[in-house]
Amino acid sequence: MAKRTDLPDDRDVKTDLDPEDWDDFRRQAHRMLDDMVSFLETLRDRPAWQPVPDWVKGELTAGIPRGPTDLGDVYRDFQTLILPYGNGNLHPAFHGWVHGAGTPTGMLADMLAAGLNANLGGRDHAAIYVERQVIDWAIDIFGFPKGASGLLVNGTSMANLIALLVARAKHLGLAVREQGLGEAGAKLVAYTSAAAHGCIAKAMDMAGFGTAALRHIAVDRDQRIDLDALSRAVAEDRARGLTPFLLVGTAGTVDTGAFDSLEGLADIAAQQSMWFHVDGAFGALAVMAPELRSLVDGLSRADSLAFDFHKWLHVPYDCGCVLVRDGALHHQTFESAPAYLARAERGTGAGAPWFCDFGPDLSRGFRALKVWFTLRQFGIDRLGAAMVHDCRLAAYLAARIAAEPELELLAPVALNIVCFRFKAEVPDLNRLNADLVIDVQERGIAVPSTTRLGGALAIRIAIVSHRTVEADIDRLVEAVLETGRRLAG
Amino acid sequence: MAKRTDLPDDRDVKTDLDPEDWDDFRRQAHRMLDDMVSFLETLRDRPAWQPVPDWVKGELTAGIPRGPTDLGDVYRDFQTLILPYGNGNLHPAFHGWVHGAGTPTGMLADMLAAGLNANLGGRDHAAIYVERQVIDWAIDIFGFPKGASGLLVNGTSMANLIALLVARAKHLGLAVREQGLGEAGAKLVAYTSAAAHGCIAKAMDMAGFGTAALRHIAVDRDQRIDLDALSRAVAEDRARGLTPFLLVGTAGTVDTGAFDSLEGLADIAAQQSMWFHVDGAFGALAVMAPELRSLVDGLSRADSLAFDFHKWLHVPYDCGCVLVRDGALHHQTFESAPAYLARAERGTGAGAPWFCDFGPDLSRGFRALKVWFTLRQFGIDRLGAAMVHDCRLAAYLAARIAAEPELELLAPVALNIVCFRFKAEVPDLNRLNADLVIDVQERGIAVPSTTRLGGALAIRIAIVSHRTVEADIDRLVEAVLETGRRLAG
Repeated sequence: MAKRTDLPDDRDVKTDLDPEDWDDFRRQAHRMLDDMVSFLETLRDRPAWQPVPDWVKGELTAGIPRGPTDLGDVYRDFQTLILPYGNGNLHPAFHGWVHGAGTPTGMLADMLAAGLNANLGGRDHAAIYVERQVIDWAIDIFGFPKGASGLLVNGTSMANLIALLVARAKHLGLAVREQGLGEAGAKLVAYTSAAAHGCIAKAMDMAGFGTAALRHIAVDRDQRIDLDALSRAVAEDRARGLTPFLLVGTAGTVDTGAFDSLEGLADIAAQQSMWFHVDGAFGALAVMAPELRSLVDGLSRADSLAFDFHKWLHVPYDCGCVLVRDGALHHQTFESAPAYLARAERGTGAGAPWFCDFGPDLSRGFRALKVWFTLRQFGIDRLGAAMVHDCRLAAYLAARIAAEPELELLAPVALNIVCFRFKAEVPDLNRLNADLVIDVQERGIAVPSTTRLGGALAIRIAIVSHRTVEADIDRLVEAVLETGRRLAG
Repeated sequence: MAKRTDLPDDRDVKTDLDPEDWDDFRRQAHRMLDDMVSFLETLRDRPAWQPVPDWVKGELTAGIPRGPTDLGDVYRDFQTLILPYGNGNLHPAFHGWVHGAGTPTGMLADMLAAGLNANLGGRDHAAIYVERQVIDWAIDIFGFPKGASGLLVNGTSMANLIALLVARAKHLGLAVREQGLGEAGAKLVAYTSAAAHGCIAKAMDMAGFGTAALRHIAVDRDQRIDLDALSRAVAEDRARGLTPFLLVGTAGTVDTGAFDSLEGLADIAAQQSMWFHVDGAFGALAVMAPELRSLVDGLSRADSLAFDFHKWLHVPYDCGCVLVRDGALHHQTFESAPAYLARAERGTGAGAPWFCDFGPDLSRGFRALKVWFTLRQFGIDRLGAAMVHDCRLAAYLAARIAAEPELELLAPVALNIVCFRFKAEVPDLNRLNADLVIDVQERGIAVPSTTRLGGALAIRIAIVSHRTVEADIDRLVEAVLETGRRLAG
């Protein structure tokens, strides 16, 4: 072990990592902020997306920096190597995945949060009360009862895992935490639809059940879970001596934005004593818009809900949320109380219950602040209207597709996602549409993505951005037609 | 389902969430930044910590905002309700837990990241290459081989869970992902020390093994795992038909900053065919300082490592990291390939392998940027020197304690953590020291914490901040003496 007396005397050295010259730092900071505001103000002037050039990739393989670099030089590298080659999701013509577009306000809120540098694992400080307030707002928005609990997490994947672990504790008892799954755990089976997000299966994998214990129930033409098929599967599993414990409904499927019948699922879960969880990654927020709310009827009957603030509420990445109806069980599923985290009535050890006792993480950044700023500045009515706007654009796109003989709609448009393709007499239509999408992306016109629906490769347009307008949709349709014709020969 | 034709026509309405007046927004943004820089410049003028007043807690229970609020008004609430009531970890006199102090640079980097709003789950954009570069630096720093993999996560708790799941896949085969733990899984047992962090047990719980399958091996007087006791426990478990699969060493225990003999653990893990994981939450970074490096001899032999950038590297919360020697196995443990995440050779779907295939999250913020800025601006030599500075202060505090008859050191000082107590002839010495700590906290002089060592309640001083200097330690000692004498009557 190092001898403490060997440590160098640094009493006359500047040992902190604060600026040597605060005025100089302040000027640099204002320059960065000014550049970023200008960048956000002029998004439309740039391509929707562009590939990362090889020389940039090369620069980003430089070895570990041993010595210092001037902050201004590091920033210049950010400007040339990183800023021009983003995801694309800031741009009005990004429709590739269900990615939020961010807001300038969210950027400022994250700056404040990073300056404050709070750890929300626990202890008594204002940030804790902000996260509680945000969760209480979510509980209110979704009609969960008083006594419900929640936690901000990276995203819905983690929120789904947390809910699954609470459901596990419900069915196996809290002894599962000490004793593990055991024989009773090996008999548990869960249900979701064939159109559910892959992270449900991943949660079953991580929690030790294995993905084979998750039944993917067939969907109807509208990509909604088939309730009769579900009931049959549950009955068959019970006949085999298995124990149905968890039913996961989807509010807004990833491929087409379809909504399971949450009322129907709630009924079956109640009859069968299953935990009813809703993966509402982006679709659950439809509850905020009167025009869309009926899509999530039954959501307030769920035992737990997972959704994201960084998708349709445009909070900067990352920020998801889990809500649990039985807040006490949620707490019991994750609580622990080692000596070094002793709670107190007063001092910094106060403020119980601590958020570290509601999920896996003890180190937790101040995600809540960007949600707080976003919800407060815009209000939920306006945020709901922005969602309705996207759905209107999706309907507009569907109408334009219907009017074009060379285009074919591949799924009903339930919300904000449109799946279609370019039709032509070619040997491999799927290949043509895949190439078409990459061509449109690489030219920076727009960012569609692809998915597969019943064997057909679909151009998938997820309209999530608050910046998209009809003219962007028109430009997209023209680009698809022009590119499709060119590629078809 | 809502009729799409019912959606309101908003063609003449401003539907985006960008500022109505960019100049006004820019002024507001600069004001916020200026305030935050001033706040960071004048940290010493404020109390180290202060309780959140009841009126603030009351304000932070206001109901859901339906309508809009001017951004300036939201910001004013941040200034009055949140900013004054932080964790305390920014302050030079915060020694309560192993919390990083943040840096002004980290604040700027997070602002840039939030403006760019990238999702690093996958796809081809520059942020991905930045995270890869940061991970390659970590691989280099810790002496892991080429072919090793890594992932930035919230913190070490999640990093430990990920490593445990890779170890699980190693011992049960990748079929565990589909088939679950089963009978073979029920026989697996893991080992760590009695001084290990509680998140190791939590990971065993979440992964379905149960905490009872984790053996807490006794520690020696220096809080290091007893290697003989470990070997005996492994032999006993094998004799019972159980399968030792995972050995978790600690580099820097949470209570006292002790280091297990990583060479000794690596030998035992190799002999017993166990996965050797190191929880190096803050201590592993000692490798960056020549004066401390010998503490982590053997670390480069680990199969996996978990550590945090937000602790001793002062990156703003949150940012931890997991490294895995066998990068291919790490990838196989988490990969999935649904149609909506189809990979491509070109376009936005390029850039494989994607980070979502190395852990639980598909939505992942641009944590890497603040690490990149921090490591590049300061360089690892200076960051290492800042750690040595903290250890020197810990040695200085230990010397001051030794010189004061009313103070008693309760554990050897291996690194930067000092556990001691005030001694007095009182009926309940533990109670006196607990009250003493809260008294010092509430007066804003300093933020010590407490832990228990062999029944004794210890004042725990974790010196992590780059801002702490000898005068802060002197003030702490004086405050402890003065408060102790007062409370002792």
